[in-house]
Amino acid sequence: MIHRIALAALPLLLPMAAIAQEAPEPATPGSVIAAAAPEEWTAIPAEDLLVMELAPDTAGNARRVVIQLIPAPFSQPWVENIRTLAAAHWWDGTSVNRVQDNYVTQWGDLTEDKPLPHGVVAPEAAYEASDLLAKTTSLSWLISIGGNSGNAGPPAPPLDGRDDLHAALAGFGGGWPMAWYGYQASLQAWPIHCYGYVGVGRGYAPDTGTGAELYTIIGQPQRHMDRNLAVVGRIIDGMEHLSSLPRGSGDLGFYTDEEDHLRTAILSVRLASETADPPSYEYLDTASETFARYVNVRANRDDAFYTVPAGGVDVCSVQVPVRQTGS
Amino acid sequence: MIHRIALAALPLLLPMAAIAQEAPEPATPGSVIAAAAPEEWTAIPAEDLLVMELAPDTAGNARRVVIQLIPAPFSQPWVENIRTLAAAHWWDGTSVNRVQDNYVTQWGDLTEDKPLPHGVVAPEAAYEASDLLAKTTSLSWLISIGGNSGNAGPPAPPLDGRDDLHAALAGFGGGWPMAWYGYQASLQAWPIHCYGYVGVGRGYAPDTGTGAELYTIIGQPQRHMDRNLAVVGRIIDGMEHLSSLPRGSGDLGFYTDEEDHLRTAILSVRLASETADPPSYEYLDTASETFARYVNVRANRDDAFYTVPAGGVDVCSVQVPVRQTGS
Repeated sequence: MIHRIALAALPLLLPMAAIAQEAPEPATPGSVIAAAAPEEWTAIPAEDLLVMELAPDTAGNARRVVIQLIPAPFSQPWVENIRTLAAAHWWDGTSVNRVQDNYVTQWGDLTEDKPLPHGVVAPEAAYEASDLLAKTTSLSWLISIGGNSGNAGPPAPPLDGRDDLHAALAGFGGGWPMAWYGYQASLQAWPIHCYGYVGVGRGYAPDTGTGAELYTIIGQPQRHMDRNLAVVGRIIDGMEHLSSLPRGSGDLGFYTDEEDHLRTAILSVRLASETADPPSYEYLDTASETFARYVNVRANRDDAFYTVPAGGVDVCSVQVPVRQTGS
Repeated sequence: MIHRIALAALPLLLPMAAIAQEAPEPATPGSVIAAAAPEEWTAIPAEDLLVMELAPDTAGNARRVVIQLIPAPFSQPWVENIRTLAAAHWWDGTSVNRVQDNYVTQWGDLTEDKPLPHGVVAPEAAYEASDLLAKTTSLSWLISIGGNSGNAGPPAPPLDGRDDLHAALAGFGGGWPMAWYGYQASLQAWPIHCYGYVGVGRGYAPDTGTGAELYTIIGQPQRHMDRNLAVVGRIIDGMEHLSSLPRGSGDLGFYTDEEDHLRTAILSVRLASETADPPSYEYLDTASETFARYVNVRANRDDAFYTVPAGGVDVCSVQVPVRQTGS
């Protein structure tokens, strides 16, 4: 049921006329995405979009960050908490309190004692979706880009259910980078912490956090966070407003008391459906032919700039294309 | 000859007394590094250290970036150019001209017509070292952390020399993240573009660049750059001064003419050996027992914060420990 992209063999499907007449321009990730059919793009529901307005920068420019929340069946208890927190305007007046280079930017309530809205509690840990077959109509949306943690290549060896990265497959499901192991009814899948992905801050295990404290990855993804922290979304616009902030000099990149002026104030966080002029976005269907070509080109760059194709690509080096369609 | 770390089996070598009396604190990457023996640290030669002074930030704070140049047998024609450029004070008065989110920060001569010192020319491409056995006394310094692009796990399948990521092993050699394939005399190895690693900007292939235009990785490493661009060093201090700069809004993250005020001026770039009070650093020997333990702990976090050990780790998630020892 799990669809596999045959990376090396995938033809680029160039029009015959172009092949007959002249050598075509080599495909680039950009040219492949530009050629996607309209029906290969999927609209993101307004209830999955969160709009965070940071205080303007020193030059007075607005700083808007847009987060796409992860859809079912992943991380939904936290996602529901986040919708409740946004509806309660809970983040208004909070701040970005931690920026650790090559790791995370983290935001929330500096005092750590701001009361939470009714019903917002840390759920039981459920970092994996363990009965995907029951929760989705088809598993064909899980697309492997190669075994062994997302590096493309020949078909992976038979899965043996070992609970480690090596045994896990990585790829994409429903528009999101995923890792999984098992097969059919025993399939276990979980979302991956890539650059710009948003997770739930927490204390020591088994605490899972509520979703009030959030972070995003601003460097090399640390895959050991997967299944230990909840991935609840990804930044689809304005990532630079979080990644380019001054780093904190305290432990773990927290700003010290002397660096209070470096903390960026959060003016508001709203569900897009609650805003006056909601922005809209769509992402490239990860089960589409164009996405398969895009992965292939990412893994085998052979345009004028490159000489040696890598022949493989890390799952986090394949960013799911997202584009704004309104407002 | 290539040494392999048996990740899962590696004992943590705890003192017997601790085992007998109480459950020891679980090891963390930090605790493992702190316990390294003095002789496991290797001094970085002053001629391999480059000190770049950026213009002070808006609060008047100095911004010093220290780069470690990669040692032989890798990328030496460019490294020699870089030493010549630094000795000629060529970068003084140049600037940071490009900051592309989740990709690179790049610096050099904005006009692109500043004359280069005598002898600084783009070398023939030699991104790989192809006769390592002749160039080093032993290959035992190439340490694999698992097959398939640096993900730890069981021994990799036999190498078949295929020219792709899947067939390549990844790990560490001489203190640097490396990928390689082949065996013994046929071994080909090359350095990896990880976060904070420095490479040589260039035009279209087969141009290889001179080393006058440099970049560093500020996001997800893009391994397709390996063997297509020359890795010449890594930032070992002050990375945050390059990663937290405002992103450029022009194509590829270049600053536009309207964003001239965002370009960060480079006051000077000097070889440490040329400075009045040279800083000194050392790195943890990647062939040491402590480094092996460090990789193991990175791949299998089981301290109080983590519940599910990953069982593997990407080569770029294992930063080689570097510490300052003087000035």
